[in-house]
Amino acid sequence: MDVYQESLLLHEEKKGKIEIAPLAPVTNESELSLAYTPGVAEPCRVISKDVSAVNKYTRRWNMVAVVSDGTAVLGLGDIGPEAGLPVMEGKCVLFKAFGGVDAFPICVGTKNPDEIVQFVKLLEPTFAGINLEDISAPRCFEIEQRLKQETKMAIFHDDQHGTAIVTMAGLINALKIVHKKLDQIRVITCGAGAAGIAVIKLLMSMGVKDVIMCDRTGIIYEGRKNGMNPEKEEIARITNRGRLEGTLADAFKGADVFIGVSGPGLVTKEMVAAMNPGAIVMAMSNPTPEIMPEDAQEAGAAVICTGRSDYPNQVNNVLAFPGVFRGALDVAARDINEEMKVAAAYAIAAQVKDEELSPEYVIPKAFHPDVGPAVAAAVAKAAMESGVAGKQVDPDWVARHCREMYTIA
Amino acid sequence: MDVYQESLLLHEEKKGKIEIAPLAPVTNESELSLAYTPGVAEPCRVISKDVSAVNKYTRRWNMVAVVSDGTAVLGLGDIGPEAGLPVMEGKCVLFKAFGGVDAFPICVGTKNPDEIVQFVKLLEPTFAGINLEDISAPRCFEIEQRLKQETKMAIFHDDQHGTAIVTMAGLINALKIVHKKLDQIRVITCGAGAAGIAVIKLLMSMGVKDVIMCDRTGIIYEGRKNGMNPEKEEIARITNRGRLEGTLADAFKGADVFIGVSGPGLVTKEMVAAMNPGAIVMAMSNPTPEIMPEDAQEAGAAVICTGRSDYPNQVNNVLAFPGVFRGALDVAARDINEEMKVAAAYAIAAQVKDEELSPEYVIPKAFHPDVGPAVAAAVAKAAMESGVAGKQVDPDWVARHCREMYTIA
Repeated sequence: MDVYQESLLLHEEKKGKIEIAPLAPVTNESELSLAYTPGVAEPCRVISKDVSAVNKYTRRWNMVAVVSDGTAVLGLGDIGPEAGLPVMEGKCVLFKAFGGVDAFPICVGTKNPDEIVQFVKLLEPTFAGINLEDISAPRCFEIEQRLKQETKMAIFHDDQHGTAIVTMAGLINALKIVHKKLDQIRVITCGAGAAGIAVIKLLMSMGVKDVIMCDRTGIIYEGRKNGMNPEKEEIARITNRGRLEGTLADAFKGADVFIGVSGPGLVTKEMVAAMNPGAIVMAMSNPTPEIMPEDAQEAGAAVICTGRSDYPNQVNNVLAFPGVFRGALDVAARDINEEMKVAAAYAIAAQVKDEELSPEYVIPKAFHPDVGPAVAAAVAKAAMESGVAGKQVDPDWVARHCREMYTIA
Repeated sequence: MDVYQESLLLHEEKKGKIEIAPLAPVTNESELSLAYTPGVAEPCRVISKDVSAVNKYTRRWNMVAVVSDGTAVLGLGDIGPEAGLPVMEGKCVLFKAFGGVDAFPICVGTKNPDEIVQFVKLLEPTFAGINLEDISAPRCFEIEQRLKQETKMAIFHDDQHGTAIVTMAGLINALKIVHKKLDQIRVITCGAGAAGIAVIKLLMSMGVKDVIMCDRTGIIYEGRKNGMNPEKEEIARITNRGRLEGTLADAFKGADVFIGVSGPGLVTKEMVAAMNPGAIVMAMSNPTPEIMPEDAQEAGAAVICTGRSDYPNQVNNVLAFPGVFRGALDVAARDINEEMKVAAAYAIAAQVKDEELSPEYVIPKAFHPDVGPAVAAAVAKAAMESGVAGKQVDPDWVARHCREMYTIA
């Protein structure tokens, strides 16, 4: 039985992957009168006088909605909200296991961005954070931007920023191996979807100056006519300042780093061989990478990352989102900003110690028990320093809190 | 320390009353690949081909949203969605404890009925049922009606129908004590809010022919000018066919049953004394009844019910809603209709055995372990017989299922 049939069986046996568990016992009249009427009137009264007390007397402080419309689920595409629900439930399991975050899956019955925005805004009294998931580009950009502007919840689109953070973590460590610096390298990317755009933005936030984005049409440059959209136009204005034109193969010439978040098999050995010495290849199309690791290695790549768990250096979002939200929730953050994402990337990278670092180990394993706490603490600190924290706490406490709440170790 | 302070402390210590608990373990790479990627792609694919399979491979089959806008919370009124959240979390605890139902609290950030309807409709891919809670009248009527028409979820406004069901259960047994029949009695009610309207409708569904509704203005009759609204107009057309006019006191003369869902102290001993022999007084204003049980007894009432746990015969909704939803969910009901409510009322009443029946015991205790299973089985049967069930199951299995899933005994 393969992993797919085994998973189907698990889902059928469990009849769903999450349940709602009471934290207050209700086994007799006395307990009932405390958890419910008449006693519950008192926390209600207190919150009605000070709305922020909702984070003290209810679970809101730790509640994140995993919201999807089912339009870009895994590699399956627009399969509908019901069909997306197994992924969202799984995500909620990971949130709890890796970060102690109470996450609830909501697949909404609309694809209309305005309706999704309006829907999520109405969740604000109940949820401290929103993890957008598997919403197709470019709709996901507008939805995320509007929610960030129009609410005070911690908003995070994991397909964009989770992927970007872990990619950056891998890049930070890979550069140590090839002895290059962020501000000296040329990075080319392929793929202009949710992850592709976010990777570019985080690269630039982290000080990479020479970035060239490609799509299937080739190099993206300001003024290109074919296959553009508002997001690519924006990227064209801030990258590729030399206005390089040409094919994807042309882009590889003289590049230091390739980041692929596009499709299977788009990259050849010849392309990789045309890169500068010490080439870093991050081929994250899943399950089939842009180029297979064996081929990239033959072509001379020094460090290779993929999205697969059966090769070294898996770019796995689970290294980021549980800790990111643990940190954001623990400081009651109103936003998840660039500073917090950069902090998360460095925190993940730092979990590979210098003596462990090798071309086969630039990204920590998914179950590394120190990653979540380190990310949470770093994100909390960055939130406080960048002015989006609702309260001030000791980052060390955040790390301990993550360790207390997660269940992976 | 009183119950209010003790409850506040409980809420602060627990930091909320529910959490999200994983049903699938994630402690190593192999488990991760089954609960999440890549394995989870298979249930997604199966559901994308047959949307109804969402109830087989996710928790949707057992998921109920407890939705409120915080406009009519307990006796506290319009205290806002955040302040309503402790009640909704408590309700979710009771759903799980008494019925094994996974209920999730959502307090929405709007009071606009159109926005609430639109919001709840978008929940349909995720939830099999909706429990509306603490939404003020008359807005609650429109919201419930539209959701029943525009979705296939099991919709239930507990403040209306939960109260009505348990009231009817008490009435069924009280009538045995005074040897009267439903179709021969005159019932007067006081209170034209959510519960009041629902009580009237369920009374008539169960065969009561002579019903007179009052509000603070007095008897409601067709053509009354003062203090009317569309709901009262509708009630006036179907009740009080003798077009009795007058005060609340006038209504009591010759009545067999008084049902109060109004306010404290509205009823005097003299009013009760004017009722027919074998008077049944259900004074459910909470915490202070329309008339205190001691006074009603002195005035000659034969059976007295209240909303309080410190007097006999508490009309407590927890006797109804967990079993109602357990039954509805177990047959994948598209609605919770009158037949299901009537069945629930008789099932609750039947849990008081003939030899136990007394004026002090016409309504079973909240923690009676047979109530939930009996209600669930009766509701499931009624759903199947009235054509709103999505699947056919053995009602005895539903009862066993409730017993397996609840945690109260």
